[in-house]
Amino acid sequence: MNTEKNTRDSKKESPKGVEKRKITPRKNNRNRSHNNKGRGRGRNHTNKVNHRNTKTHNKQPIPEIQGNDVRVIPIGGVEQVGQNMNIIETKDDIFVVDIGIQFSSEEETPGVDYIIPNIKYLLERKDKIRGVFVTHGHLDHIGAFPYIIDQLGYPTVYCGLLTKWMIDKRNAEFPHLKSLNYEIVEAGQRITVGPNNMKVKIFAVTHSIPDAIGFSFETTEGNIILAGDTKLEHVDTEPVQREKDAYGKLERDDQKNLLFLSDSTGAEQMGWSKNEADIIENIIDMIGEAKGRVFLGTFASQIVRITAIMEGAHAHGKKIVLEGRSMKTNVDICIKSGRWVPPKGLIISADEAQNHAPDKLVYLLTGSQGEEFAALMRISTRKHPKIKFTDRDTVILSSSVIPGNAKSVRKLKDNLARNDLRIVEYQTSEIHASGHGKQDELLWIEKTVGAKFFMPVHGHLSMLKAHMHAVMDKNGVAKENIIIPENGSIIDLNKDGFKVHKAKAPNNVTVVEGFRVGDIQDVVVRDRKTLTKEGIFVVIATIDPKTGKMRKSPDIISRGFVYLRDSQELIQGARNLVKQSITKNTKGKNPVDFDTIKKRISDDLGRYLVQNTGKRPIIIPVVLGV
Amino acid sequence: MNTEKNTRDSKKESPKGVEKRKITPRKNNRNRSHNNKGRGRGRNHTNKVNHRNTKTHNKQPIPEIQGNDVRVIPIGGVEQVGQNMNIIETKDDIFVVDIGIQFSSEEETPGVDYIIPNIKYLLERKDKIRGVFVTHGHLDHIGAFPYIIDQLGYPTVYCGLLTKWMIDKRNAEFPHLKSLNYEIVEAGQRITVGPNNMKVKIFAVTHSIPDAIGFSFETTEGNIILAGDTKLEHVDTEPVQREKDAYGKLERDDQKNLLFLSDSTGAEQMGWSKNEADIIENIIDMIGEAKGRVFLGTFASQIVRITAIMEGAHAHGKKIVLEGRSMKTNVDICIKSGRWVPPKGLIISADEAQNHAPDKLVYLLTGSQGEEFAALMRISTRKHPKIKFTDRDTVILSSSVIPGNAKSVRKLKDNLARNDLRIVEYQTSEIHASGHGKQDELLWIEKTVGAKFFMPVHGHLSMLKAHMHAVMDKNGVAKENIIIPENGSIIDLNKDGFKVHKAKAPNNVTVVEGFRVGDIQDVVVRDRKTLTKEGIFVVIATIDPKTGKMRKSPDIISRGFVYLRDSQELIQGARNLVKQSITKNTKGKNPVDFDTIKKRISDDLGRYLVQNTGKRPIIIPVVLGV
Repeated sequence: MNTEKNTRDSKKESPKGVEKRKITPRKNNRNRSHNNKGRGRGRNHTNKVNHRNTKTHNKQPIPEIQGNDVRVIPIGGVEQVGQNMNIIETKDDIFVVDIGIQFSSEEETPGVDYIIPNIKYLLERKDKIRGVFVTHGHLDHIGAFPYIIDQLGYPTVYCGLLTKWMIDKRNAEFPHLKSLNYEIVEAGQRITVGPNNMKVKIFAVTHSIPDAIGFSFETTEGNIILAGDTKLEHVDTEPVQREKDAYGKLERDDQKNLLFLSDSTGAEQMGWSKNEADIIENIIDMIGEAKGRVFLGTFASQIVRITAIMEGAHAHGKKIVLEGRSMKTNVDICIKSGRWVPPKGLIISADEAQNHAPDKLVYLLTGSQGEEFAALMRISTRKHPKIKFTDRDTVILSSSVIPGNAKSVRKLKDNLARNDLRIVEYQTSEIHASGHGKQDELLWIEKTVGAKFFMPVHGHLSMLKAHMHAVMDKNGVAKENIIIPENGSIIDLNKDGFKVHKAKAPNNVTVVEGFRVGDIQDVVVRDRKTLTKEGIFVVIATIDPKTGKMRKSPDIISRGFVYLRDSQELIQGARNLVKQSITKNTKGKNPVDFDTIKKRISDDLGRYLVQNTGKRPIIIPVVLGV
Repeated sequence: MNTEKNTRDSKKESPKGVEKRKITPRKNNRNRSHNNKGRGRGRNHTNKVNHRNTKTHNKQPIPEIQGNDVRVIPIGGVEQVGQNMNIIETKDDIFVVDIGIQFSSEEETPGVDYIIPNIKYLLERKDKIRGVFVTHGHLDHIGAFPYIIDQLGYPTVYCGLLTKWMIDKRNAEFPHLKSLNYEIVEAGQRITVGPNNMKVKIFAVTHSIPDAIGFSFETTEGNIILAGDTKLEHVDTEPVQREKDAYGKLERDDQKNLLFLSDSTGAEQMGWSKNEADIIENIIDMIGEAKGRVFLGTFASQIVRITAIMEGAHAHGKKIVLEGRSMKTNVDICIKSGRWVPPKGLIISADEAQNHAPDKLVYLLTGSQGEEFAALMRISTRKHPKIKFTDRDTVILSSSVIPGNAKSVRKLKDNLARNDLRIVEYQTSEIHASGHGKQDELLWIEKTVGAKFFMPVHGHLSMLKAHMHAVMDKNGVAKENIIIPENGSIIDLNKDGFKVHKAKAPNNVTVVEGFRVGDIQDVVVRDRKTLTKEGIFVVIATIDPKTGKMRKSPDIISRGFVYLRDSQELIQGARNLVKQSITKNTKGKNPVDFDTIKKRISDDLGRYLVQNTGKRPIIIPVVLGV
């Protein structure tokens, strides 16, 4: 590495026109009012509800790109894990890197399937898009393709071979989509893209799926480098030559590396991650020594591990049974794409397994996160039609517990424990390593790339900051040369410096929910959170609109609040209360004022219910004049 | 330890009358039907919902205790962490050990506040209760006192001094309770309880709260030993003399240790836990070196740590500010009970802190789990009226992440990161240790106690099994001498063996929810889970009961389903569908059949909504004849 080219003394190269970004606490002032008639006391507890990260719409106009400046916008993936999408833009061209989803959390966004990148900025500049570049085939980098690629007008997709197959598989469930126009690239290539001949260098990175690559966009101002998700293969913390070659040769002869966007997922963890090769060896050893069947639960996305273990099992004379749809599909893709050729007769069906001795059988299964309908859980609860556990089986859970899954993994383990088999876990045995490098790996990568400016991406703010502090404290990068972005931040760079604009690309949270794709509907999400804790209470009264006289006793419907059958007294009390409320508020009034009646019912009922139950359900009074 | 007395060769001492317990997968057949009119398609998705661990009521009659047999029943705490309660019963006496709550999970039991032990067995034998013995003052051991102690008829409570104060604090919010009758006990004592003179030996155990004790009930058949929550103080894995004395001297001269019930919370973790003293030293060092304010977030229940840190801060000439109700209350209890005397002038208010230099201030706060309204979160989001973070502050998160809290802790860390301060976490620094011993500690304790039979308690099944396997593999205990119980298991022991009865003590899940205490209401919980994902859709039609003619266009109310304002077309379609459905199903029918109409509306509407939105809300058709 030529250190002269990469001087990072911030005092010498103090970037001009840099505006220090002020990070202020998020505001939640998008208090969208809605058709709230008769909501009543039910509202009171909405202030107990956790507002989600919805953004205020930025009213600042988005500035034009000046001269040869390069614009970088992390559309998603810098305030969360997932939803990854970055934009690299020049005056004439736009290059999109990755189109990923974020899995929704039942706790934060109940009822939402996925969160996807907001592409409003791209749609307004659709003609400039020269291609979509995909680092690898995991859902947090390709999962939003089916919701977005059509709107983007099907630009050419640049990616590795396996990545193409993964995208096609993802899109296959959306029959309205046209087939994509791919350009398959390989590490080491330097390709030319678009009418303005952007040179893009492709380099290999280590991740848990084959064909993972990084891109270096060689702009006139310098290289913009994105490595995707990365870890390092190393021998006792010395990266192997392949890694040195990949990250050490990213410069063009006449230009510098201007900006490096680097994965922060593992930045909060100290040291080096375990080598995937060691993990695989440990698991294959266990398989070799097993006297009974081995059930290996792992992420279907761990394609490097899965294929290597199958080969290891083969070497031990064992047969493989695949269980779980995504496991079968991903192995199928590896084979069909030609990325992996299975030894003949290695993979057998669950039925065929009955003809083999238990110590010759290895099952690869989905469900190590305790997913209710995945293979591992169904076998453990004896709901699987073909596979039953015995006390001579060994279950290897070759995966970590993803945040938010602690309870479901605990449930799985309890169910497995009921089968009296042996459980091997990653906490006690070296049988899982993340595909994301830990802090010391990330530091080595940053140092080796040696770009002038540094932008941690892929992670929550606390991960980005941990990455920033590490790069400052241990690699000596000046704070002024580090950019901590938010989703939608617009950063314009040239060789002299960078500017983070006040204006942001549209960044409202965009969700997929059933068949709907669009803005998150705060009010609906808020109602769901209330419904789950307090329930709903609907009261229906029919009155003569002229006299206000009730035509019949009010109907009461409730769900998720109390068990009605055990609460006859409470319900009767509520009914009487409603009758009194209506009588009082219609007396002497002609015509009766429905809004007032409803409001009063809500208030009276809310008070009555909380006093008698301690709960504050959503109350909906319906008063019909018939 | 006299090994002759503790022969554990299972072949020699094969217990008579022992029935091997069969552990079968839990059944969920408590399919309580309920007032389900008009539930319709909404039901279809209930099979997607995770049924909770509700039990079938055991119809087996509960057998009488034979001769001098001792009965042990873990009422709670052996299928979960929390809800701890054990019963020790002889022909004439009952002794209750601990009355704890389990915190409810929004994911598994939404809307539920706590889960508490089922005391039906005790209520039917109330006259036999000779006392409640409490190991220590944490909520999972005392939290259910206010819901239970009154029904038990206020038996004498045997516990340590601080434990008494913690129970009284807990009960203070329930003014209907009488004051309790305590007998304060101390480690080393051997007390006599009840008309039949049960001897109970008290021994000291190490946990994260002072006055933690274990009990040895010296029955005629041998000692039943319960240690509560335990870890060991050790020097390089050599327990200190105090621990050797406590566990090594539990025998009576003429009798053996018959059964040991041992904490399993840490059984899945290998090795030894860190010494609390080392943790405290590390934190005090950080406090000593800090150039700015230090904010220490920890569990208010970590009373040993909290008081020690306050003294350490004092030694460094610093002042303490307490923030958060439970933190203030627990320190207050320590002081009032006389368990701790604070150095004069050490504790100051947030207002007084403004008169001190930042490097002289240490804040002890609640909220290290990311609790929304706790001190740490409110300061981090700048909602705290008196305390604002600056970039010179250090926040030490001296706690682990409790399973289920990963997302809220992440949120807290992101909010802290926005304040640009330094965050120190337990993953990267030795600033937290659990109060529960890891596997090697538990093995040492088991070996030192050396009881004939062993019963792992306090934990999920997978923890109990991990504990069992460790004790078998490493301490050489025979599997036949280990009892893996379920909540409500009835185990009768004598010096020759034990029997686990088929009958169980009533063990329906008992919940506290608002003001209600009682059985869990599966149907309500199930509805809550559906409501949170899919929402509710209520349609109200008024028809002439004779002609079936609609009196007005149907009303539609929906919550948590779709944003109605954006869905006018969908709603209009639903309205038309309902009209058609009613017309079709009332035509030529006099009188009209309301049940059929509602059923058809549900079916038609369910199909329509799922086809148009991909969502399956709970549908409630209301058809009024007026």
